[in-house]
Amino acid sequence: MAFKTDIEIAREAKKRPIQEIGEKLGISSADLLPYGHDKAKVSQTFIDSVQGNPNGKLILVTAINPTPAGEGKTTTTVGLGDGLNRIGKKAAVCIREASLGPNFGMKGGAAGGGYAQIVPMEEMNLHFTGDFHAITSAHNLLSAMIDNHIYWGNALEIDTRRVVWRRALDMNDRALRTITASLGGVANGFPREAGFDITVASEVMAILCLATNLKDLEKRLGDMIVAYTRERKPIYARDIKADGAMTVLLKDAMQPNLVQTLENNPAFVHGGPFANIAHGCNSVIATTTALKLADYVVTEAGFGADLGAEKFMNIKCRKAGLAPSCVVVVATVRAMKMNGGVAKADLGAENVDAVKSGCANLGRHIENVKSFGVPVVVAINHFVTDTDAEVQAVKEYVKDQGSEAILSRHWELGSEGSAELATRVAEIADGDSANFAPIYPDEMPLFQKIETIAKRIYRADEVLADTKIRNQLKEWEEQGYGHLPVCMAKTQYSFTTDPERRGAPTGFSVPVREVRLSAGAGFVVVICGEIMTMPGLPRVPSAENIRLNADGDVEGLF
Amino acid sequence: MAFKTDIEIAREAKKRPIQEIGEKLGISSADLLPYGHDKAKVSQTFIDSVQGNPNGKLILVTAINPTPAGEGKTTTTVGLGDGLNRIGKKAAVCIREASLGPNFGMKGGAAGGGYAQIVPMEEMNLHFTGDFHAITSAHNLLSAMIDNHIYWGNALEIDTRRVVWRRALDMNDRALRTITASLGGVANGFPREAGFDITVASEVMAILCLATNLKDLEKRLGDMIVAYTRERKPIYARDIKADGAMTVLLKDAMQPNLVQTLENNPAFVHGGPFANIAHGCNSVIATTTALKLADYVVTEAGFGADLGAEKFMNIKCRKAGLAPSCVVVVATVRAMKMNGGVAKADLGAENVDAVKSGCANLGRHIENVKSFGVPVVVAINHFVTDTDAEVQAVKEYVKDQGSEAILSRHWELGSEGSAELATRVAEIADGDSANFAPIYPDEMPLFQKIETIAKRIYRADEVLADTKIRNQLKEWEEQGYGHLPVCMAKTQYSFTTDPERRGAPTGFSVPVREVRLSAGAGFVVVICGEIMTMPGLPRVPSAENIRLNADGDVEGLF
Repeated sequence: MAFKTDIEIAREAKKRPIQEIGEKLGISSADLLPYGHDKAKVSQTFIDSVQGNPNGKLILVTAINPTPAGEGKTTTTVGLGDGLNRIGKKAAVCIREASLGPNFGMKGGAAGGGYAQIVPMEEMNLHFTGDFHAITSAHNLLSAMIDNHIYWGNALEIDTRRVVWRRALDMNDRALRTITASLGGVANGFPREAGFDITVASEVMAILCLATNLKDLEKRLGDMIVAYTRERKPIYARDIKADGAMTVLLKDAMQPNLVQTLENNPAFVHGGPFANIAHGCNSVIATTTALKLADYVVTEAGFGADLGAEKFMNIKCRKAGLAPSCVVVVATVRAMKMNGGVAKADLGAENVDAVKSGCANLGRHIENVKSFGVPVVVAINHFVTDTDAEVQAVKEYVKDQGSEAILSRHWELGSEGSAELATRVAEIADGDSANFAPIYPDEMPLFQKIETIAKRIYRADEVLADTKIRNQLKEWEEQGYGHLPVCMAKTQYSFTTDPERRGAPTGFSVPVREVRLSAGAGFVVVICGEIMTMPGLPRVPSAENIRLNADGDVEGLF
Repeated sequence: MAFKTDIEIAREAKKRPIQEIGEKLGISSADLLPYGHDKAKVSQTFIDSVQGNPNGKLILVTAINPTPAGEGKTTTTVGLGDGLNRIGKKAAVCIREASLGPNFGMKGGAAGGGYAQIVPMEEMNLHFTGDFHAITSAHNLLSAMIDNHIYWGNALEIDTRRVVWRRALDMNDRALRTITASLGGVANGFPREAGFDITVASEVMAILCLATNLKDLEKRLGDMIVAYTRERKPIYARDIKADGAMTVLLKDAMQPNLVQTLENNPAFVHGGPFANIAHGCNSVIATTTALKLADYVVTEAGFGADLGAEKFMNIKCRKAGLAPSCVVVVATVRAMKMNGGVAKADLGAENVDAVKSGCANLGRHIENVKSFGVPVVVAINHFVTDTDAEVQAVKEYVKDQGSEAILSRHWELGSEGSAELATRVAEIADGDSANFAPIYPDEMPLFQKIETIAKRIYRADEVLADTKIRNQLKEWEEQGYGHLPVCMAKTQYSFTTDPERRGAPTGFSVPVREVRLSAGAGFVVVICGEIMTMPGLPRVPSAENIRLNADGDVEGLF
């Protein structure tokens, strides 16, 4: 049986004009700022006008720890959104935007897959509506203003060795990771070490995704720490007077983007912070706007539930006053097998025992999510090679955990395949059984917050951190940053900090290598392992094969 | 008498939906790709469909050498376009896009002024439709791929000291002019000197503005020289296999942008190459598309006629097969006075003698433009302080030169003030008296092309260039680049290379400091003086005062 590729399916999509998609949510064409015929931004004026509306139900889609087998979290998010619409509910999907740079290294990602996709796929993997370019510009304006301040006399007494604000590009360029800038003589400034991060790693990205409105955006931008004096006094973006101009550069980017699923249902695609050094969720403004317009909003969080759902709950929901009504944990039979020790090459063969053994990973995620007071459904994202016995094994395991697993075939069948999942999710959400709370209070000391996550979510025995790190955390507490949540940066492949340890490991420690303060975004980043903030290109970058074909279609991007 | 500022007037504009503006040119709303409600791109499909249409008349607006008094070249371009529409002609305007970065240094520029402006002004000074961001991405993708090629084994044997392709940002950032890249150890590549130019200085920008279609764009991108081997063998972007992916990144940017004048007439705003190291004209595709849709197309070229009109004729028209039917040389009484030796502070007082004496600058430009076989009209862009006697002095001088000068009051009155100019320009264009030809043939040796421009346009006695430069030009001729036009990079303030020498100087030499081959754009850059390709920010950058006000309007940008 031959299946069409995602891009083939996406190109066959019968897209409706974006104004029609807006109408489904009560957005008039005057309130939509179109970008071409199939993309639009929702105007700030309109967003302001619907603040009195009641909120719909928020549904989070998260997953087991990712494996090379693929889980289909976005695919399930889209499929569930379409499924809800199919059963007569007014539902919208909220996901993140794709980063441009990585698409020229490895092939670009679809937004979903099979018959559960968001379109237009090409544009979403290229410039889309320009949000990331706006973030890059705002980021680099601040960078230029810092060096310009130093050049013209350095009235703020910035220690040029302690400029922590780097530059940003949406490009995989390892040559820019570490540079010496301001070379070439007196006219070019004071030489100093500097470097670039990829745009999605910028604190501006995290801020755009957490800000509730333009005023909040400007305040948070001003709060960013960009450098220190020789006496370690922090210098803020506000001191550089960059916050106003950065806000101007971001004013359009703050408006959420509306596109559509293959089934012409509304999808908001907005923001894309890293899921390690940032919180990995689409923008608060997209989510809160969607909740004012739809009865059900299906969203997702980056990586597995140990990172993605944890940050969604402890950072995004806490800060934005959101509360999920139901959480869907995506699992696949194939991923269960890999967690059960099967190599990727052997996934084609039935192996019920391996499935059963791998389910421990799923079980821990279910338990973790429930600890936030939210009901859980497991979606088994169906692959054609799955056998009935394997599917049954997952269902039984989940049932034994006191939850329910539903096979969903949206990849193959679109909403027809996800209607059962949608029905159950709607029932649970409507049942209002959730009693959501973050798992630690604001007032808990920072190190204790780290321990809470490491012990309660990862099930580590202890957190290891040397005195320097502990003192740094205490210093921030004294400076008034103790109330911030922590943002864990560790491997997504394991509950531990070792990417090879699949399943549900116990008996390990979580070593903290470094802590960073994202004072504008409003969290303390806790780095537990190697975190790369500027990727490189592979030996044969996909860019070498990307081109327009004779029909004007993009080849090689997917 | 108090006048409104440009931004005040622009904000009061009664803009029509961009689809209505498109309709005036026969572009259906399906063929317009909207960006918000007041900006759109004209689809490539539509452009292809109108290639059989006859061409309208092309009118170039150029100017005397710029002075601090301001000439109003764009204002006159817009005013003339509105004037033509007012007298019942189907006319469109074609101008360049603004660069983002410089607006955060000095205040941003309006597109025109007074009642002769193009809107939306804010967007045109910010991200507009994202073209420059796309160029930045394409440029930096190539940069990343070059260093990536070296990193993975350098099969092309690039000499890392001879990488001529730099990086680009649309930001004034002197700290990036000269850097050392790829520091930080084995994983980050081979350390080497590098640097950034501002995006408008990128060869990609020049190529986008000279390419006739996407296929031509891809070919030109592939032709760019990015580095040399130790044996001085050129390495092309094509060798790096970046041309296809760069074309994909630029496919939307290649489609011309449509906006409107204050009087709701169509204006194409597309591309913005430097007017020194590049040719300083809006895109060929915008101009040729406008000519298929309108009976009169009014466009402009950067700087004064010695640089702008010369390059428009010798580079853009030659390469794109265009021929202007009429050239308007813009002059002001104030600028004549400055050319006549009056200081800026004293411009308010009547000084007919100074006007007369300064007219020599205008006279030489008129003569130069006529040498291309094109009829000339002088537009005196009226300032409120001009006296009748001063205006009369300019008119008489121009009459003595065998041409005609018309006072135009579009700044104050819109098209009502430019109707006379428009009437005369239309008459001349309709008269088909032009017999356009570039002033040197393709086959002339490169150095002789430089001499031709220096002697015939600037009126220099000689061109000075050392053996190294002359040999370089000969080497390029041997390599097959001898047929290219030359692109002069010198000060815009004087016919000479000394910005202080106003008027119509004689008895000077033109020293050539450096020559560069832009093999993709298709010209040889001839640098005669200091050329800055990455500006810096001033002591108090305008960014410090840019912010959104309580109404959501941008303050401080203008």
